[in-house]
Parts: sequence; C-alpha cells; structure tokens
Amino acid sequence: MTPELITAAETRLAGVVRRTPLLSSGFLDEIAGRPVYVKAECLQHTGSFKFRGAWSAISMLGPECGGVIAYSSGNHAQGVAMAAARRGLPAVIIMPDDAPEVKLANTRALGAEVVTYRRMHEDRDALGQRLAKERGLTLVKPFDDPLVIAGQATCGLEICAQAAEEGLTEADIVVCAGGGGLASGIALALEMRAPGFILRTAEPDGFDDMRRSLAAGEILRNGANGTSICDAILTPCPGTLTFPILNRCAAPGVAMPDAACLRAMRAAFERLRLVLEPGGAVALAAALWHPDLRATDAAEAKRPIIAVATGGNVDAAVFMRALAG
Amino acid sequence: MTPELITAAETRLAGVVRRTPLLSSGFLDEIAGRPVYVKAECLQHTGSFKFRGAWSAISMLGPECGGVIAYSSGNHAQGVAMAAARRGLPAVIIMPDDAPEVKLANTRALGAEVVTYRRMHEDRDALGQRLAKERGLTLVKPFDDPLVIAGQATCGLEICAQAAEEGLTEADIVVCAGGGGLASGIALALEMRAPGFILRTAEPDGFDDMRRSLAAGEILRNGANGTSICDAILTPCPGTLTFPILNRCAAPGVAMPDAACLRAMRAAFERLRLVLEPGGAVALAAALWHPDLRATDAAEAKRPIIAVATGGNVDAAVFMRALAG
Repeated sequence: MTPELITAAETRLAGVVRRTPLLSSGFLDEIAGRPVYVKAECLQHTGSFKFRGAWSAISMLGPECGGVIAYSSGNHAQGVAMAAARRGLPAVIIMPDDAPEVKLANTRALGAEVVTYRRMHEDRDALGQRLAKERGLTLVKPFDDPLVIAGQATCGLEICAQAAEEGLTEADIVVCAGGGGLASGIALALEMRAPGFILRTAEPDGFDDMRRSLAAGEILRNGANGTSICDAILTPCPGTLTFPILNRCAAPGVAMPDAACLRAMRAAFERLRLVLEPGGAVALAAALWHPDLRATDAAEAKRPIIAVATGGNVDAAVFMRALAG
Repeated sequence: MTPELITAAETRLAGVVRRTPLLSSGFLDEIAGRPVYVKAECLQHTGSFKFRGAWSAISMLGPECGGVIAYSSGNHAQGVAMAAARRGLPAVIIMPDDAPEVKLANTRALGAEVVTYRRMHEDRDALGQRLAKERGLTLVKPFDDPLVIAGQATCGLEICAQAAEEGLTEADIVVCAGGGGLASGIALALEMRAPGFILRTAEPDGFDDMRRSLAAGEILRNGANGTSICDAILTPCPGTLTFPILNRCAAPGVAMPDAACLRAMRAAFERLRLVLEPGGAVALAAALWHPDLRATDAAEAKRPIIAVATGGNVDAAVFMRALAG
C-alpha cells in the first residue's frame, strides 16, 4: 500500500461516490462528554461505504473482464452489484442465507445473481474461488485487496478534509472493523493527511477479533459460537493485508454489546435523522458509551471523537426493536 | 423581496448552516418513473430547514435586543431556539399543546422557554404579539418575514448549485407548504439561478390551502375541522408575503393523503437511510405517487423531480407506524 495507490483511487472515485456529510448534535456531545462528529457513510450509494472499495477495484478491470464475483453479508454485495452494473458487467454474489432480507433483495434488484451459503458451515472464500474459476469471473474481495483498501481510504481523506473545515486539529476516529478494510484505509489516509489523529476500531462483543489481535500483535480468530445483530462485521478474523496496517497505526480497539448498538441507532434516529444498521452503529455506540473513550480531564473533554457510521441497510423489524428499546 | 436580500442571507448563513446533500436512489426513480432527487434538509441543524430562516433573522438583531419570541409547531421553534442560543439571547417559544413530544423536548433542551396553547381554540399570532410586548421580546415570524424567506431561499440556492453539479438542466422542484416560507424562498432562488426549473407545492389532504389559493389566485383558508399527521405544515392559510411570490412563480400545487406520507417515510428509510417526519415526506410522496407528476411520454420520463425533505423530527411511535405499514 502506497500513498499513490490512495490518491489514484481518490481520482477514480471523484464524481462517482458521494462526499457524505460529517454531522453533529449538541445532544450527542452531552452524552459523550466530548464533541462528537458522525461521518454518515450510510448515505453513500447503496447505503454503505462498500461502494467506494467496489468501484475502486471494478473501475480498474480491463475490457476483457467477463464479470465479477464477490462474497458478502450484504453491504459489499450491494456495492459490487452497483459498481458492476455501472460498468455493464455481470455480477455473482455469494451471501449467507441469514443475511437481512433488505440486503438480499437490494443486491438482486441491483442486477446481481445471488448465491446463498450457510455462514457457520461453509467456507465462503473457497466457494467464491471455485465459482470464479468455473465461470471465469474476477473475484472482488471484501477487504484484503489493495485496490479495495485504497477505495475505502477515500472515506478517510474526506474525514481529514471535513475535520479541517470544522477547525479540528486533533481527534479520535472510531471505525468499526469486520475484516478491517475501511479501518486500515482510513488509518492510511490519516497517516497521509492528519497524522495527529488517532484511530480506534470498534466491534461487537464476541466478535472482537481485531481488538484481541491488536492486543496480541498477531491475527487471532473469533470463536465459532458467538452471535450478534451486527451482521455486517461478523468476519472470522482480520485480513492479512489490513492487520499489519492497523497493527502499525491503530490505538487499542474496543468492543460494545449489541444493546449499545441498538441504543446508538435510536440516538442517530433522534439526533441526526439517520438510519443506521447495527454494525453501522457500533462505532457511535463506542463514542457515546465506552469507558475508555470518556474524557478524564478538561483537556480530553475538548478532544473530539469522529465515529464512522458505516451503513444503514437494516430490516424494519430490527430498526423497530431499536426504537422500542 | 430582492435578489440582494437573498445573497446577503447566503453570506450570513455561510459556515453556519449545513449544505445538506442532494440524494438519489435508482429504486425511487423506478417508483416515480422519472429520476428523483431528494434535498435532505432533515439533516440540517435542529433537523429541519427552519434553522436557515431563524439564523437569517436572528443574526441581524442588534446588541440592544433583549430576546426573541416565536410561535411554532416545533421545527421553527427549534431553529429559533438554536439560533438564539448561538447569539446568547433568551428565547420564548409558543407551541401547540399537541406538538410531538420530541419537538417540545428538543426545544426546551436547546434552552428555550416553551409556552403551550390549544391549536384549535387560541390564536397563536395574538398570543405571540401580546407576550412580545409584555416582555420586550422581538418576534421571529415563522414565514411572513423577508429575512426569514431570504434564509429559506438559501436552500434553493444550494439546490440550484447541486442540480448543476449533477448536470440537470431542467427539473420539477416539489416543496411542502405550510405558510409558504420555504416554497417562496426556493421559488425566488430558482428565479435567480435556475429559471427553467418549475416549482410545485405539496400539502396534506384537507390542508391544501396553498393549492386552492394558487388555483383561485387569492388567499384561501383551510377548514377548521381537518386532521393530519403532518403537524409541521398545518398552517391556516398562505402568508401575505409568501403567497404573491408563489402566485407569480409556482405551477399548480398538489395534495397527498397521510397514508402516502407514511409510505414515503418508509421509502426514505429503505432507500435513502433518512428519517423523515410526515410533513417532511409529503413532497417525496407527491414525487413518487401523485398522478399529475407522472411522466406521460418519453421526454417527461427523463425530466427529474427534486423533492425537498424538509424535516425529520418525528416521535418513534409515528415512525414505527410508517415502518409497520
């Protein structure tokens, strides 16, 4: 990964992705005891940051490419489906059979062929590689690909520019981590343009492989038996490209219970008028309620937190649970 | 109202209000049979466009001003409360006793004193003028004030700029109308910078005073007995400043049933990840489902509609009704 790879992605994505807003609310500042900003990537095309990485990779495919394939719980799926459709390429997406209905339906509606698998019993990587070979499709990995990481990094470049517009000279950036594509991309962007900012990963309890891996200095896997409503970020372990970046750049990670993600969804509904999915709310949950992110003195109380709200593809029933809570 | 008044407001508001995004989704285009864009003013400070007009007026008050007073169903209330707080001025807000809880609570939390009245039995204008005199407060009218209209017009200036960025050379702009402050402001902005665009007002069935007034060429009032969930736009009649502007500039208005507003809230949830309140969704409802806005030939099917989503301050119970529907 080089800075040139990221600035090249920035150029390819310009005018194609949305520059999503950086939002704030005094009510959230009061909860956190610090200024809170929310990077609203739920407003990105297809409702998550994943379109950035997908377009970054797919826009580089040559005219000889016969189509793409991807495996995804639903957000990468939609990003790849839309990017492929814009390039006029067929797309096959391998999705867990328990993915949210809205994600399965949207991926199909964006023109992709959806192949489902059982999350706990089949290896999606192996399935993806087999199908890619059989049908002559190019695999677009969800995170462990330099072009995808460079695409997600553009979200970080926007954060740097928007923080400067707000006059912020220091900040903690909280980013959820599945495989770590977005977090590592943002880490590289901060290194380039806001080296004083500190990045921390946020994950759901029981799927805190990144937090534990960062603490151990080596890649550790999640246990096989956990459950969480944060479907978007239940990846087995950090990526082999993403982990070394975060191991070098990131401060210790944090984990939050599902109940806090639901509370953060409610807070985003009331205070920012945003729809977040559970995984897209875990960074905001950490910003609002994780004890390690609370200010312990007056100087820390002035230091802003920027939480990346990564996605908003959520079934109505789950959202109603958050509102009823 | 002069163009200079509007460009002066643009300068006063720069860096204070948010430039809210212009969003779109292929799924919405398919419903409408035309390209649909949504100006997401629900993402404005305080969750509605009202902060624009409030700041436009309150930022002009001299140092001798002892405070402000406003009457509002809740969105103007919050806009005025926040603008007054930023100026360090006390604010008294007169609100109907049946205003949504979230609006009453937020207005108080923004530091304003809230005085409630009964919507159908008391004259809020008279009450406001009496309190203003008694306490020496400056009345900030919700719409019939040149500074307020000029502030709302900045939303229209942004639409013109964003439409140009999207390459749109023609469009129908659909804006909800209570008293008509936003609609008339946007109409003036279009006249200045996008004279080919056509503005249409949208209202809830039973509160279509603007539609009927535009058809009659004179100000007509709503009947006293209607009900609607669109609390933000249940004004008795068009304003004396706003109506002549719309009478000159606007195409015929449309009205939509409450059920369509709930459906539009659901569509914004699913397709744009935005939280809209019922009144904030009526323009989108019209864009998606009003027969007068349907394309009747191939040329019209290419002509975009821009719906202004004016606010997102909605009680969870009402939002859950929209999701369950």
